[in-house]
Amino acid sequence: MSSAAKSLVKIGKNKIAEKNVVLGAPASRKIAWSGLAVGSHARLRSGTVIYRGTRIGDHLETGHNAVIREENEIGDHFSLWSNSVVDYGCRIGRNVKIHCNCYVAQFTTLEDDVFLAPGVVIANDLHPGAPDFRECMKGPLIKKGAQIGCNVTILPHVTIGEYALIGAGSVVTRDIPAYTMARGSDSAKPKTKIYDLECRVKPHLPYQHLKRLG
Amino acid sequence: MSSAAKSLVKIGKNKIAEKNVVLGAPASRKIAWSGLAVGSHARLRSGTVIYRGTRIGDHLETGHNAVIREENEIGDHFSLWSNSVVDYGCRIGRNVKIHCNCYVAQFTTLEDDVFLAPGVVIANDLHPGAPDFRECMKGPLIKKGAQIGCNVTILPHVTIGEYALIGAGSVVTRDIPAYTMARGSDSAKPKTKIYDLECRVKPHLPYQHLKRLG
Amino acid sequence: MSSAAKSLVKIGKNKIAEKNVVLGAPASRKIAWSGLAVGSHARLRSGTVIYRGTRIGDHLETGHNAVIREENEIGDHFSLWSNSVVDYGCRIGRNVKIHCNCYVAQFTTLEDDVFLAPGVVIANDLHPGAPDFRECMKGPLIKKGAQIGCNVTILPHVTIGEYALIGAGSVVTRDIPAYTMARGSDSAKPKTKIYDLECRVKPHLPYQHLKRLG
Repeated sequence: MSSAAKSLVKIGKNKIAEKNVVLGAPASRKIAWSGLAVGSHARLRSGTVIYRGTRIGDHLETGHNAVIREENEIGDHFSLWSNSVVDYGCRIGRNVKIHCNCYVAQFTTLEDDVFLAPGVVIANDLHPGAPDFRECMKGPLIKKGAQIGCNVTILPHVTIGEYALIGAGSVVTRDIPAYTMARGSDSAKPKTKIYDLECRVKPHLPYQHLKRLG
Repeated sequence: MSSAAKSLVKIGKNKIAEKNVVLGAPASRKIAWSGLAVGSHARLRSGTVIYRGTRIGDHLETGHNAVIREENEIGDHFSLWSNSVVDYGCRIGRNVKIHCNCYVAQFTTLEDDVFLAPGVVIANDLHPGAPDFRECMKGPLIKKGAQIGCNVTILPHVTIGEYALIGAGSVVTRDIPAYTMARGSDSAKPKTKIYDLECRVKPHLPYQHLKRLG
Repeated sequence: MSSAAKSLVKIGKNKIAEKNVVLGAPASRKIAWSGLAVGSHARLRSGTVIYRGTRIGDHLETGHNAVIREENEIGDHFSLWSNSVVDYGCRIGRNVKIHCNCYVAQFTTLEDDVFLAPGVVIANDLHPGAPDFRECMKGPLIKKGAQIGCNVTILPHVTIGEYALIGAGSVVTRDIPAYTMARGSDSAKPKTKIYDLECRVKPHLPYQHLKRLG
């Protein structure tokens, strides 16, 4: 790497980086800006790779072998755990947590406080393999505070509303309203308002604090 | 690492460790015991990371980039294949095999002879994002000899009985009886006793040896 | 590694290999040929591991931590993206693309131009844990140009026809005809001919070019 290229990689203070962390991997696509900006207090575990063209806020935390591709704009307090990949061109808010073994497709939007449980896979391609597929390629919009359960599949173009909760193993093929629990593996269906959900282990309403918002 | 900290990492004899294996990664949570104990004949492939606070028996075998977090208690002959993660606080018996790209949530119990096929995701959180979720957090109990098929999702708190077989792609939302084949993607349902299952390739009963047990 | 063993690893010209790439990892199974042959113009990203006993054509491209096991026969222009694993004994044609976090089971056949979207899991074992399971172990046959959606599970022995399209999150338990879109999470069912599929974003038939073939 030339010193000119190196100088475009800016990492804030108080960084902890383990072995085999790559900061500023070159994109194989043509990108507008070839720098990398990561804020302060980054905690990067072994095998993490972050590409050029991306901007990330403070308090980034990664698991092992997390990959963040180019041209992502990511807020503060982002966590991306082991073996998860954020593909290029995403918009990710503040305080977003992505657990292990997830995949986030290009052009996905995750607003503040979104959580993806382990194994979530996000799609963006309506017709893979078709010659002009790029025009219709767009990841989902997952709105503020939505919680996506384990191994959920989310299809392109859908919108998941604020503070929605998607049950583990669901396949989300259409829009889900805000403050709604939805599940189903052929097409997740809205079931109940999240602030009315009852815990089946102990008698409480775990999401009742959201009632004033919804 | 100080020599005092190093001395708490004890690995038995006849270990084979490839490049970039990390033994004794520090937990970011507070843990009671900061040692690591792995038995003899460990075979650790490149990129394996094992955290402190964990005890593992003899004949551990890992694939590439396998991650074992802190405070796990694991028996002999444990295999964890490439890109799989065992999160913290699990109890895992003898002769357990976890294939590639799996995720095992905190506080999961896997008894002896359990097998997880590739892509299995285990959940432990009944209401992600809720403020007091930790009280209700508990992984499933998967009992002796159960076989979990490819890309299965298992929800928190469920019990999968001894020698049960869960069909590929299923979502397990409730308890499954022992010696039972179950499948279904919205909620795996018991279908037949495992010792009565017929192979559709050649005429035999592959699990008939379990009849005397069930 | 002895120089005799090293000499059996043959990589064509114009290779680019990043850090921590392992070419010629030893198989733990007994294999007939202990060499490794990779064609020209390979582009291998960090953490890639390729085992002995495998032959791969020109223009191989891998993501981070991609694993290719032994005794695979793979054509030109193969792409295997981050955290994906091709297990041993597969036959893979030309121009096959496997996206992130996929698992391809032993003895799978992928013909030319097949695409696996992120998170696809392929099974090969009809009765895991049964004593004589190896006789019935066989991966699926995925025929030329088939497109497999995100997080799809494919069961052993099935055949997916030429240019079929499998919807995201499906579980494929039986054969799918050629030129057919199929989806469903308990058992993917044929829905429509692929060349009649309409895009729901802009008014066009994305696969109409296949009509002359089907």
